[in-house]
Amino acid sequence: MTIDLDSQMHWARWGDPARSHPVSDSMRELIEMFLGELTERPAVPQADVRLPEVGLSDEHLAALAGLVGEDHVHTDAEWRIARTRGKSTPDLLRMREGDGADAPDAVVRPASHEEVAAVVSWCADNQVALVPFGGGTSVVGGLAARRDGFDGVVALDLRLMNRLLEVDERSGMATLEAGLLGPEAEELLAEHGLMIGHYPQSFRYASIGGFAATRSSGQSSAGYGRFDSMVMRLRMATPQGDLVAGSSPANAAGPDLRELVMGSEGAFGVITEVTLKVKPIPQVKVYEGWRWESFAAGADAMRRLAQGKVLPTVLRLSDEAETSVNLARPDAVGGESTGGCLMVTGYEGTPAQVERARAAATELLEELGGENLGEEVGQSWAEGRFDGPYLRDALLDVGVLVETFETVAFWSRLDEVYAAVKSAVEGALAGQGTPPLVLCHISHVYETGASLYFTVAAKELEDGLGQWRQAKAAASQAMVDHGASITHHHAVGQDHKEWFAQEIGPVGVEVLRAVKQALDPAGVLNPGVLVP
Amino acid sequence: MTIDLDSQMHWARWGDPARSHPVSDSMRELIEMFLGELTERPAVPQADVRLPEVGLSDEHLAALAGLVGEDHVHTDAEWRIARTRGKSTPDLLRMREGDGADAPDAVVRPASHEEVAAVVSWCADNQVALVPFGGGTSVVGGLAARRDGFDGVVALDLRLMNRLLEVDERSGMATLEAGLLGPEAEELLAEHGLMIGHYPQSFRYASIGGFAATRSSGQSSAGYGRFDSMVMRLRMATPQGDLVAGSSPANAAGPDLRELVMGSEGAFGVITEVTLKVKPIPQVKVYEGWRWESFAAGADAMRRLAQGKVLPTVLRLSDEAETSVNLARPDAVGGESTGGCLMVTGYEGTPAQVERARAAATELLEELGGENLGEEVGQSWAEGRFDGPYLRDALLDVGVLVETFETVAFWSRLDEVYAAVKSAVEGALAGQGTPPLVLCHISHVYETGASLYFTVAAKELEDGLGQWRQAKAAASQAMVDHGASITHHHAVGQDHKEWFAQEIGPVGVEVLRAVKQALDPAGVLNPGVLVP
Repeated sequence: MTIDLDSQMHWARWGDPARSHPVSDSMRELIEMFLGELTERPAVPQADVRLPEVGLSDEHLAALAGLVGEDHVHTDAEWRIARTRGKSTPDLLRMREGDGADAPDAVVRPASHEEVAAVVSWCADNQVALVPFGGGTSVVGGLAARRDGFDGVVALDLRLMNRLLEVDERSGMATLEAGLLGPEAEELLAEHGLMIGHYPQSFRYASIGGFAATRSSGQSSAGYGRFDSMVMRLRMATPQGDLVAGSSPANAAGPDLRELVMGSEGAFGVITEVTLKVKPIPQVKVYEGWRWESFAAGADAMRRLAQGKVLPTVLRLSDEAETSVNLARPDAVGGESTGGCLMVTGYEGTPAQVERARAAATELLEELGGENLGEEVGQSWAEGRFDGPYLRDALLDVGVLVETFETVAFWSRLDEVYAAVKSAVEGALAGQGTPPLVLCHISHVYETGASLYFTVAAKELEDGLGQWRQAKAAASQAMVDHGASITHHHAVGQDHKEWFAQEIGPVGVEVLRAVKQALDPAGVLNPGVLVP
Repeated sequence: MTIDLDSQMHWARWGDPARSHPVSDSMRELIEMFLGELTERPAVPQADVRLPEVGLSDEHLAALAGLVGEDHVHTDAEWRIARTRGKSTPDLLRMREGDGADAPDAVVRPASHEEVAAVVSWCADNQVALVPFGGGTSVVGGLAARRDGFDGVVALDLRLMNRLLEVDERSGMATLEAGLLGPEAEELLAEHGLMIGHYPQSFRYASIGGFAATRSSGQSSAGYGRFDSMVMRLRMATPQGDLVAGSSPANAAGPDLRELVMGSEGAFGVITEVTLKVKPIPQVKVYEGWRWESFAAGADAMRRLAQGKVLPTVLRLSDEAETSVNLARPDAVGGESTGGCLMVTGYEGTPAQVERARAAATELLEELGGENLGEEVGQSWAEGRFDGPYLRDALLDVGVLVETFETVAFWSRLDEVYAAVKSAVEGALAGQGTPPLVLCHISHVYETGASLYFTVAAKELEDGLGQWRQAKAAASQAMVDHGASITHHHAVGQDHKEWFAQEIGPVGVEVLRAVKQALDPAGVLNPGVLVP
């Protein structure tokens, strides 16, 4: 078994830059057609990143080394930069300009639940802020430490927590440590013929603990469910002691505390172990494309699949704009489009399961007017499924501001939310003289509603951060005003807090504050994140 | 549409005594074979029930009348007795002996969310305890007010909250007021061709708000899910204001506050409105029986169905003892048994859905060695599905102590839990000189585990309450000691609190206390229930 502890993302870009390609001439042509002439806008070299002084005293650093070992406490620039913020476009813009102001004073790497618990206690006792750091893929400001009021900031790097602790084959469950990245977890489970089946776009770099802490949802959610629906038990270290949530598949023993741990984003404690439903590795995987006349027609077909309980494993639908630029197939961006709206369906399982599910879904999709485009288009989506974020770096390099955000609403309001959010973000950017390209897809469906995932591209102004802040605020307010959630699977972080508070209301905010106060009275856990 | 506001259960028995029958000669013979000679043990007449003085002052009663109208505040004995406690065997034993000590001072019947909110605020301001009362079917001491420290106790009867507020056909959802009983809700939805599909044994008398507050699970949970899985949104009146939880099917906007409202058993607030997933009324319903050589073999078949995702709508399995007395078919108790272990499968939906599901399940069940017993046995279960509790009254009348309790565990520990709980309750009763009959079935299955529902019958001692307390404590401790939950669908109430605290641990308890303190600082909401 190979676990690469050095697998980590580039300090100012997504993932492994070796997988990234500069914008091709044809793509550049396409973009310039929409946004006007582009100009290069390179990032500063890493050596130019400005870091705050290490604020932790030598005594503090020695104490931390006493808890996790000297080799696992890092204060050099490279480690600190690598554990600064997440990978939202604002995060990238700041880093590309050399702004390392949110860097932790030290990166601390515990290797067990007990070491995590010791560091958590120590931070609470010493008024040192602690930011749990899994894969570092947050796109909502979930990893930017608020420094004021603290004697220092520690990034708690969980990557040494990389064990498969238990496989319970009879119950179809496995217990994994929080620091395992998606591919590492799948590799460990594959030795038992099992898998999780959770494939968000961040899959290659995001961690098991992070999936739980942020309520992640993957591209196969139609078949395998959201990550939170797979979680049977969690162990969380808090300043008040351990919380183990989840005794059984489901029960009536009071509020479900798992659902309070999930989505807590490091503000209530540090998730160290997660027990998940696991499944046999599918013998067959088939993906295919479908063409719909309109986004509305395709969305309605998705609703019918969900409500008729004939969901494929993967189900996604691009709107007209996203289809026209082939965003669902990163390798084909700028190439010829299928026209209309592209739907991708995927079926995974035993041959019998795939045949049964595919037949039922195909019958309904054909009845509703979908045109089957065959497997080639579907396969092309599957091959590029984790590569979208690389495109963003390439575009930032040529002065195109690109960002994504997402929401979820009940079916009866989905059209309204789509129109309102699109119009809000278009208005906010056009108002700044940079009319954007706005693309959208649905990639998570439920019986009662679906997600909307937007990609926005505009020419970057001098103050790209301020430019985006306005656009994002307009989109966020439109979501909440039209009865949608501020986030389907990106979480709250710092960036969504204002609208999250509107969404859950003042009594909801009071509940979260009470839980935070009970578990983290010193307020050292991921300060500024989640709790309004 | 007919809603019968007077539909309420007999003060000392389950449901409508007209549906009840005395123990037949053949059943008596069967029971005496196991438990020895029986002797009649009748309940006192209602007039002999001893009630505490009404503790609320005239000013208090006038204030309450000002909030909900004079006609909706009741202090007469009949109303107070009818809203005293729930329907556990200990509750019935107390009432049968004339012990009305837990009666509320007044029964208050609000007719809207606003009236509920006003009464909740008033109780908090006046240090008056408030017990939300829906259908009154609690079997865990969820409705017994703790009087000490309060100026009085109000039973908040929610039965006037009986409206279907909204149907969202596109999203497949409906919003119902909390006081609607199961059949009333189904009747209102049937006008739209819709249904909920939640059929616990308490269906005829339990309320929508109660289903949510206690995380109920119904006999069709394999197909339609637990009640909590159907809930999309809830509105709850708390002393701090309204909490509306649920913006969307699912999201990543922090902890899921719906899951904190559900299972809160009136201790955090009063649930007034519930938005549920609803489905088209099934065109076809088929139930059939299967015979298995052993409980273990049948349970394993259930596991395979759940993990293979070929679950029927209804799936239950009686152990050898329960099969031998035909408990799954109340009309057949004492008659000839099928032998082995009886499984009931049910399929509901369109003809195509039923055919598909039935074919897939049948193939697997036959492969695993099940013997198909045909539809007659299944139909017999379906007809008697809500009648089990009447049998208990008839048995209490002849001095047989009967009670049920339930648990849930992961598959890998289910056999162990079954053996341990059975042995604990047998030991505790045999040790008192009353060796019991212990029957068990599985009626809720998940990919990762299943429920166990026990029925226990023993000759009642003079102190039946004390006798049962010992048995229940032994069974409860066995559940927690063997990694099972203290309750799958009966909830915590007062009766399970001790083991609930063990199950969620001290940090879990702190979280619940913090939420309670934040929402109900005066502690007037259902005092003594849920929160350890």
